[in-house]
This record gives sequence, structure tokens and C-alpha cells, in this order.
Amino acid sequence: MQDITARHFAERLERGARQAGAAGFDGLIIAPGPDLAYFADYLPVTTERITMLVIPADGEPTMLVPALEHGGAAGTRASGAIRLVDWADGQDEYVPAARLLRAEGRYAISDATWAMHLLGLQQKLPSARFAALSHALPMLRAVKTGDEVDRLAAAGAAADATFEDVLRLPFAGRSERQLAAELDRLLREHGHEQVDFTIVASGPNGADPHHEPGERIVAEGDTVVLDFGGLLAGYGSDTTRTVHVGEPTDEEHEVYEVVKQAQQTAFEAVAVGVPCQEIDRAARRVIREAGYGEFFIHRVGHGIGVTTHEPPYLVEGEEQPIEAGMCFSIEPGIYLPGRFGVRIEDIVVAAEDGAHRLNNSSRELHLVG
Amino acid sequence: MQDITARHFAERLERGARQAGAAGFDGLIIAPGPDLAYFADYLPVTTERITMLVIPADGEPTMLVPALEHGGAAGTRASGAIRLVDWADGQDEYVPAARLLRAEGRYAISDATWAMHLLGLQQKLPSARFAALSHALPMLRAVKTGDEVDRLAAAGAAADATFEDVLRLPFAGRSERQLAAELDRLLREHGHEQVDFTIVASGPNGADPHHEPGERIVAEGDTVVLDFGGLLAGYGSDTTRTVHVGEPTDEEHEVYEVVKQAQQTAFEAVAVGVPCQEIDRAARRVIREAGYGEFFIHRVGHGIGVTTHEPPYLVEGEEQPIEAGMCFSIEPGIYLPGRFGVRIEDIVVAAEDGAHRLNNSSRELHLVG
Repeated sequence: MQDITARHFAERLERGARQAGAAGFDGLIIAPGPDLAYFADYLPVTTERITMLVIPADGEPTMLVPALEHGGAAGTRASGAIRLVDWADGQDEYVPAARLLRAEGRYAISDATWAMHLLGLQQKLPSARFAALSHALPMLRAVKTGDEVDRLAAAGAAADATFEDVLRLPFAGRSERQLAAELDRLLREHGHEQVDFTIVASGPNGADPHHEPGERIVAEGDTVVLDFGGLLAGYGSDTTRTVHVGEPTDEEHEVYEVVKQAQQTAFEAVAVGVPCQEIDRAARRVIREAGYGEFFIHRVGHGIGVTTHEPPYLVEGEEQPIEAGMCFSIEPGIYLPGRFGVRIEDIVVAAEDGAHRLNNSSRELHLVG
Repeated sequence: MQDITARHFAERLERGARQAGAAGFDGLIIAPGPDLAYFADYLPVTTERITMLVIPADGEPTMLVPALEHGGAAGTRASGAIRLVDWADGQDEYVPAARLLRAEGRYAISDATWAMHLLGLQQKLPSARFAALSHALPMLRAVKTGDEVDRLAAAGAAADATFEDVLRLPFAGRSERQLAAELDRLLREHGHEQVDFTIVASGPNGADPHHEPGERIVAEGDTVVLDFGGLLAGYGSDTTRTVHVGEPTDEEHEVYEVVKQAQQTAFEAVAVGVPCQEIDRAARRVIREAGYGEFFIHRVGHGIGVTTHEPPYLVEGEEQPIEAGMCFSIEPGIYLPGRFGVRIEDIVVAAEDGAHRLNNSSRELHLVG
């Protein structure tokens, strides 16, 4: 894996400025979180104190930082390309913040910017206009470079290794929470520096797609949905596998095969130029035709990069055509309330010759003990 | 420690509604994060999908949740007091969100609400008015109940135990990052479920108040600032101690004593009815009179509760009078650029007879190996 260097950050800043200008914006306003890590190599300690990078369509990228965090902001790989402006406790921080913007400007602002800070800017600049970055420029980070795909593949390989280890664990008699802790431990052992989710949804809990692992004890006969991911070297993994404790019933087997077929069909539907919603429709068609349409209650996928959830979203209504280099999940599921659930999820990269999986653990129904 | 029960959540919701009405708001809009944990006992998995609790000044608390997370939202200790409304992927989520609000209403909204969601609400309801919760109702969570103070005291005791263990660690020859990992481990061993920060700032790095622990190897003669905290049973700890590797110089000793005196003076300045800024001024006066005024570059403290940083802020300009039950940090420091830093921080609760410390480890300058 190549290092991401000062040059890469400078290129990202230039591309951000160019895309902002092309879309008719005066600039981008980037808040702490993955956007700031991406553009400025910076994850500040701060919470309520404003840190704000402005990337003007035309001009010098400038970051407002709390004076007491100047040191950290000045020491990043991107710092050569970003001017720093400090503000101090006791000051009205929206005065220096507003000075970095045009009074009648139009800005795309990080989705996760605190509402408190947006309201502060709106009050100082009542004629300025703001739009959420992922609505204004949804594809700003969506097409990955080769270096970024390498990193996503490394995260996917670590998720594969985690799943292989998981298959050797005893399931029956242990709580979901214990198994979730094992997933967390294994992801870190395989190199993740951050774990974002470790869903373990057993038996009837599997019908709840975002089930929070609890005290339920896994038992013989359970279907168990495992959905786990986080960041490795700054890039995301996100894999779902469904396993079974002991022999599945015919119905469990059938539902599993429908989901597997839907996942494969959606995978094969990926092609450059195809609208994102078509991938969702491809999976949904297979599930509907098998008679389970009403039990597939979420979109089929989402982008992944320096976060585990980002544009492009593969959902009905998203007409954005797929481009080579986009990386996203494909994760259909069937959720039978009060009974069980099945989901299978891979991360893929779109290329001129179709989709390639960035995680490659087996998609067969594995039996665990 | 008593459990926080359904009745407590119902009381919090009622108090939120009452305070919103009294301040002239039509209601509160509460986003995922500590505000939602406080009012709804709920920390959703979700990131970009909107989850939004509306507490009307007059009416039934209602929470909009992504359909795929309905299960988690329905299973909380607060769920009996909150009506749930689902929205599904592919829907414009701001349509059902706007239906929970009045077109010309005035709302206080969680500080950390995503800007994307606020912009979505503003677009659907152009005549509605929004204000940041901590500006509109800064003291909403500031006065703690007895149960809450007990929890903060338990978190403080765990931080004390952590510091006692830290004093037995070898410092010289180890990197800041290694020592930070030890702090993380010890906080968890002593019961924290979440670690928010583990600042280890050695030698010249100590002059950077929010220094990110790095590869610097701690050496004989270093002053080391340790600032660590997180959540235990949902409530925060936040302690800073400064230690010295081997014998300090006379100057290091002097600076330490000035900070210790400033911290004690601020502690003694706490009284019901005193404006918050007076506590900042009390510490600042001691440091200024000792000739180090320009080197104390941040406010003296912040509130703590279900987060480690929240109102009240003890900062110049904050005229809010201290009330019995408010819990906050007192943490003056002196930062000598390129040389070293010293900070001492305790969490205190204000009472009719003055301040009481909720963490009680020694404030003497400890020598480590």
C-alpha cells in the first residue's frame, strides 16, 4: 500500500475547489469527521469548539481552528497546502468564521457539520446559501483512486480473515453481546484501528436489520446475521454473513438461497453508466419474484471510503450513473418478523468490465457450532 | 447507584417540554448523540439516516426513526413515553420529519444535529425558526439530579483509581502513544464503557493543551500532562494531572504551584448565584499576578454529564449564575511554548455550601520513573 502524501492532499483540495466551482458554488465548508480527514489529514480532539476548513472555488484553502489545537492542525501531511486561522475561547467564533466566506456566497457544507455551527454562520451571513455536501456534490469522494481501492481491498481482506476466525468460534450458549465483542477483537487483531459496528442478530432478532446485540443466548437452530466493519488505515470494511447453528430447516435454506441469488444478480447488474437505482431494483426483483418482496425493507447498498456509509446510495430514486472507481456495498436481505433474517453483503468496486468484490469470504450458508 | 428508570425518562421529557414552552419555543428537536440518550435512552446505529425526537412544548413526544431501526427504538426504557413514526429508505425523510413540526414554529435543536438534516427541515419549513439547543436552553441538562451526581462521582472515582495505577507505571523510555494506550486500558478496567480522550503531552508537547499523543519518547526531566476521561454508566469523567519524570527544576516547581493555587482559588470561588465567568476570572487572576497571564490560553472549565463537554461553560462573557447541582470542570493551565505545560483539572458539583470535588486524586506534583 502506498502512503497518502502531501501531494495527494493538495490534489484533493484542488479537485474539491474545481468541483465546487463547476457546480456553481463559491466553495466547500468542511467540518471535523471523515471529510476533514480526507481533505486535511486532520481529526481534531475538539467537540463543541468550531474547526472549519473552507476550500474556496477560487483562492487559498483556509482552516479556522481553536487556538489550543493549533499544534495538531499545523502538524498534518496537508498543512503545507492549508492556511491556519486561530480563534480563542471567549471570542465569538462565528466572526472569524464568517470572514472566510462571502456574504452572498453559495457553499456546500459537510453533512455532519454541527447544526449549532451552521446556525451561527447563517446568523452572521443571512444572504449566504448553504447546501449539504452530499446533496450538492454527492460524487465528490465517490470515485476512488487506485491507492484508495487498495486500501478498501486491505480492509476487505481483514474482514475476510475475521469471518474465517468467526466460523471457528462456538456460537450456541453464548450471548450476542459476547459474540459482538469477539468480532470487535478480531477486526482489531486483523488491523482495524476503528470498529464501527458489530451486529450479531440471532433467531428472531435477525428480523431487525440494525439489531443492537444484547443478552439473548444463541441456541441450536438459530440463524445468525453478522454485520461488521470499521476502518483500516483510514478506509472502510463492511461485510455481512449469515450463519446457522446446526442444520437449517428447508425454509431457512430457501430464504438463504433467495438472498444469495439476489446479491449475485445485483452484483452482475453493476456496469458503468447504469443508474444506481437499477442495482437496487435487480436485487428487489429476485426477492419479489420469490414471494418475499415485502420483507426486504432497506436499500441494497451504500458507498464506502473514509467512512463506512457515504454516497453513492443504491436506492430507488437515485439516478446517478455508476462510474468506474465507485466502491459500494451490495447487501440485500429478507427479514421475517418474529422468526429470523438473512442478509449477505459484499463491498465491490465498479470497473469498465463490471463489478469486482473487495471482500471474498464464502457466500455459502456456513453451519457453526 | 440507583437505576435510571422509565419514570426518570418521562420526567426528563416533561421538563424538556416545560422549559421549551417557558422559553417561548414550540418544542425541542433532539438528534442522535448524548441529548437523545438523555431524553430517549436511545443511541441508534444509524449515521446518515435521520432519527429525530420532537418534544413539543404542548403535545406528545414523537420520534421519527428509520424503519430498519424500529426494533431498537421500541425497546428502550423511555419507549412508553414516546410515539414512534417510521420512514423507509427511498422516501424523502424530510416530509414525515416536517409533519412533526409547525410550519411557523420556533424550535431549539440539538447542537450536534447534522447540518444536512437541519437544511432539509429548513427547506420544507421556510418559515420555521431554529436555534441551537445549548444557546436557546443552555441549562436544560446543566443542573443534575442526585442520581446523576452519584454517577459522575462513580466516574470520578474510576478516574482516581486510574491515576493511582498510572503513578506506578514506568514513564521514561516509553512513547506518549504507549502511555495513552495504558490510560485507555486502565479507564476501561475501572469500569468506563467509553473513553473519549487520553492526552499524554510530554516535555515541549505539554505546551499544546490538546496535544495528540505521538511517537515522542518520554525522558528524564520531562513534565507530562495527562488528561483523560470518558463515560461510566453513561456519565462522564474528565481529570487532568501533571507529573514529572525525576526531579523538577525550580521553575517547573513554581509554575506547578501557580496552577495548583489558581485551581484551588477557582474552586473556592464557586458559590450559588456567582456568574460562571467569575470562576474563570478567579483562576486567571492568580496566573496573571504570578506573571504567566499570556500563557493560560483557554477557558477554565466546562459542564459535564452524559457528555464530557457541555454547558455551563466557565468562560469570560458567560453571565449564567451557578446553581446548586451544576457539575463542571475547573482546569487552569500554563503553557510555555517550546518548553513545557502544566494543567490541573477536577470535576466539581456546586452546592449551597460551595463546590465539592467529584474526583479526589492528589493534586501534589508527583514524581514518576
